[in-house]
Amino acid sequence: MNTAANKKEVSWMNQRLQQLSKWLKEKEITSGFITSTPNVFYLTNFYTDPHERLLGLFVFQDEEPILICPKMEVAQAQNAGWQYEIIGYNDTDNPWQLIQRSLAKRNVTVSTLALEKEHLNVERFEQLQRLFPSATFVSAEDKLNTLRMIKDEKEISILQEAAKLADYAVEVGVEAIAEGKSELDIIATLEFELKKKGVRQMSFDTMVLTGLKTAAPHGKPGLETIKKGDFVLFDLGVIVDGYCSDITRTVAFGDISENQRQVYDTVLKAQLASIQACKPGTRVGDIDIAARSIISDAGYGEYFTHRIGHGLGIDVHEFPSMNETNDMPLQKGMVFTIEPGIYVPEIGGVRIEDDMLITADGAQTLTSFPKELIIK
Amino acid sequence: MNTAANKKEVSWMNQRLQQLSKWLKEKEITSGFITSTPNVFYLTNFYTDPHERLLGLFVFQDEEPILICPKMEVAQAQNAGWQYEIIGYNDTDNPWQLIQRSLAKRNVTVSTLALEKEHLNVERFEQLQRLFPSATFVSAEDKLNTLRMIKDEKEISILQEAAKLADYAVEVGVEAIAEGKSELDIIATLEFELKKKGVRQMSFDTMVLTGLKTAAPHGKPGLETIKKGDFVLFDLGVIVDGYCSDITRTVAFGDISENQRQVYDTVLKAQLASIQACKPGTRVGDIDIAARSIISDAGYGEYFTHRIGHGLGIDVHEFPSMNETNDMPLQKGMVFTIEPGIYVPEIGGVRIEDDMLITADGAQTLTSFPKELIIK
Repeated sequence: MNTAANKKEVSWMNQRLQQLSKWLKEKEITSGFITSTPNVFYLTNFYTDPHERLLGLFVFQDEEPILICPKMEVAQAQNAGWQYEIIGYNDTDNPWQLIQRSLAKRNVTVSTLALEKEHLNVERFEQLQRLFPSATFVSAEDKLNTLRMIKDEKEISILQEAAKLADYAVEVGVEAIAEGKSELDIIATLEFELKKKGVRQMSFDTMVLTGLKTAAPHGKPGLETIKKGDFVLFDLGVIVDGYCSDITRTVAFGDISENQRQVYDTVLKAQLASIQACKPGTRVGDIDIAARSIISDAGYGEYFTHRIGHGLGIDVHEFPSMNETNDMPLQKGMVFTIEPGIYVPEIGGVRIEDDMLITADGAQTLTSFPKELIIK
Repeated sequence: MNTAANKKEVSWMNQRLQQLSKWLKEKEITSGFITSTPNVFYLTNFYTDPHERLLGLFVFQDEEPILICPKMEVAQAQNAGWQYEIIGYNDTDNPWQLIQRSLAKRNVTVSTLALEKEHLNVERFEQLQRLFPSATFVSAEDKLNTLRMIKDEKEISILQEAAKLADYAVEVGVEAIAEGKSELDIIATLEFELKKKGVRQMSFDTMVLTGLKTAAPHGKPGLETIKKGDFVLFDLGVIVDGYCSDITRTVAFGDISENQRQVYDTVLKAQLASIQACKPGTRVGDIDIAARSIISDAGYGEYFTHRIGHGLGIDVHEFPSMNETNDMPLQKGMVFTIEPGIYVPEIGGVRIEDDMLITADGAQTLTSFPKELIIK
C-alpha cells in the first residue's frame, strides 16, 4: 500500500475531499452523504456498483470521512487507496445502525446533511430522516457537478486514451462495412477487436445504424443488412479506468444522392464551426448556436432535434448540458461532446461527434477519426 | 394498431393493471405512481430507459391509467400497445405541472400514493410532496414484486428462448478455449456469435475467469491467458424481449488436480440436490439448505459465500432473494436461479448455475448446457 502510486492517489483524493469539506464549511452544512457510484469513485478512487446494497460516503467539515460498503468489498476499497474509516457490513447487518454507532463514537451531531437528491431513493432518505430526525436535507449535486466538470491532468490523460480507443473502434467498424453485413455484424466485429485490446466495457450500447434507420436518433441496431447508397452511422464509446469516450461518425456505402451529400456537408460545416468557437470564456449556448445557425440557414433547422452536446467524464452524459440556453462560460479543463445532427425521415440521418477539451488558450479535439465524407 | 397481436398485448396489460387497481382498492390507496423502467414495462409493454428524464405511470382504483414520458417517445409507447392517456412533455416543459393539470381535469384527489420507494429519488419525491401536500406515501414494491414473481405463459416462452441463447453462448465459449487465449478473447468470440444471431444486449457484463481468478465471485475479466490445469468459469446471460437469462458453467483446461476435481464434484452434487428439491410448496430456504448442507458436509462450508440464487425475469436479479432464511413456498410460475459455488483461494472457484421454472407438479430446468466436468 505504501507505493509511490498509492501516495499519489491519496494526494488527489485528499484534494477533492478537502474541496468538498471547504464547501460544507462555507455553506454551514454539517456533513455530506454521497451515495452514487460515480461520485463515490470521484472522491475515493473506489469504483463499485453495489446493486441493491448500500454504498455511502460521509464527508465532514473537519472530521475524517467514513466509507460504508459491503464487507466483501472493504479490501477492494483499501486497494484503491482509501485510508480512512470503512464501515463494512454483512447482508445480515443493518448498515444504518452501524452508521449511527460510528457517528456516536465521534460525537458527531448532524444538523444539515447534503445529499444527492437526484440519486438517493426515498427508502434510504426515510432511514436518514429516522437517524437525524431534526436535520435539514440539502442538495450536494450542484457542488459535485462543478467539481467534476474541471478535469485534472490524470483525468485528461485517461480521457485521451479512451478517445483513441473510440477512434480505433470506428476504424475497425468502417473497415467491416460490406455488402450483406448487418448492423449487429459490424458491432460484433468492432467490439471483438476492442476486447482483444483489453477493453472491458463500452460507454453505452454501441450503435450502428444503416439506411433510413439513421434518421432515428434513438434507433436500435438489428439484423438489417447494409445496402448500396446507405448512410452507416456509428455512435459508440469506450470506458478506460472509469472514464468514458463518445464518438459519432457517419459514412456512405457506395454512391449517395445529392440530398444525402448536402445533409452531410451541412452537418460537417456546423460541427467545425462549433469546434471553432470552443475556447475559455465562450458562452456554452454560443457553441450550440454556432452549429444551429448553419443548419437552420441551410434549411434543416427542424431536423436538428437535440442539444449540441454534453459534459463527458465518469458518466457518458454529465454536467453541463450543452444547449443554447446555457449561459456558463467554457473553462480550462472542461471535457464535452460536440455532436450536431440532421435527421430527415426520407433521406436519412447524419451526426458527427467529437470529444473536446478546453485548454488554456483554446481547445483540443480528443477524437480524431477523419470527418471528410468516406465512401466505402 | 388493431392487429390481433396488439389486442393480445392489451389483454394481458389490462389484467396486470387491473390486479394493481384491485390492490389499491383493498388497501384503500388512492393511486399508484410507478417510475422504474422494469415496472413500467411490466404494466405497459413499453420499455424505455429515459436516463435523467421522468418516466411515470399513474394507476387508480377506477380511473383509466396515465403514462408520463418524453414527447419524442409517445409514438413508441403507443406502438407498444398503450391505449390510455399519455402526457408527453418536451425538455422545456415542467412535467409536474402537466401532471397536476391532467389530474385536476379528472377531479382526482390523491390522499394516499403508492410509490417505488427503492427507486424514486428524493428530488422527485419532493415534487410529489408539493403536488400532494396532504398525502401519505406508501410503498408499492411488495405488491409489484409479488405480481412479477409469477410468470405467465408469454413470459415463460421468452425466458425459455433467453435460456437457450445462454446455452449457445457457453457452447461457443467452451469451443473457443485454447492455449494462449485470454479471458477477453473468449468473451469477444462468444458475444460476436450472439450478435450474429441478433442478440443486442447481455443481462450483465459477461464474465469469463481463469485460474485462481475463479475464486473471486466478483472478479473482472482481463487479458490473462488460459493455462493448462486452469478452471475456466463462464457467467453470462442474454436479454430477449426485455427478459434475462443467467447461466454459469465451470470447465477444466487440461488435467486438473484432485483438489479441483473434488471441489467440482461437490458443487455439482449440491446443485443437483437443490434442483431436486424444487417443486410447488417447498420452502425457498430449503433449496438453499439442500445445497449448503452437502457443501458443508464435504468441508467447504466457509467457501460457499453467497445465497443459492435469485428471482429472474425483467431484472436479472429480482424478487425473491433465494436464501436460507426465506420461508416463502415455491409456487407454479416462479423463475429463479440455482447457483451454488465453492471458492477456495489456493485452489480456484467453481460455480454451476441454472435457470429454473416451477411447474404444476415439479420444476423445469430452462438452461441445459451439460454439467458433467468438461476437460478441454
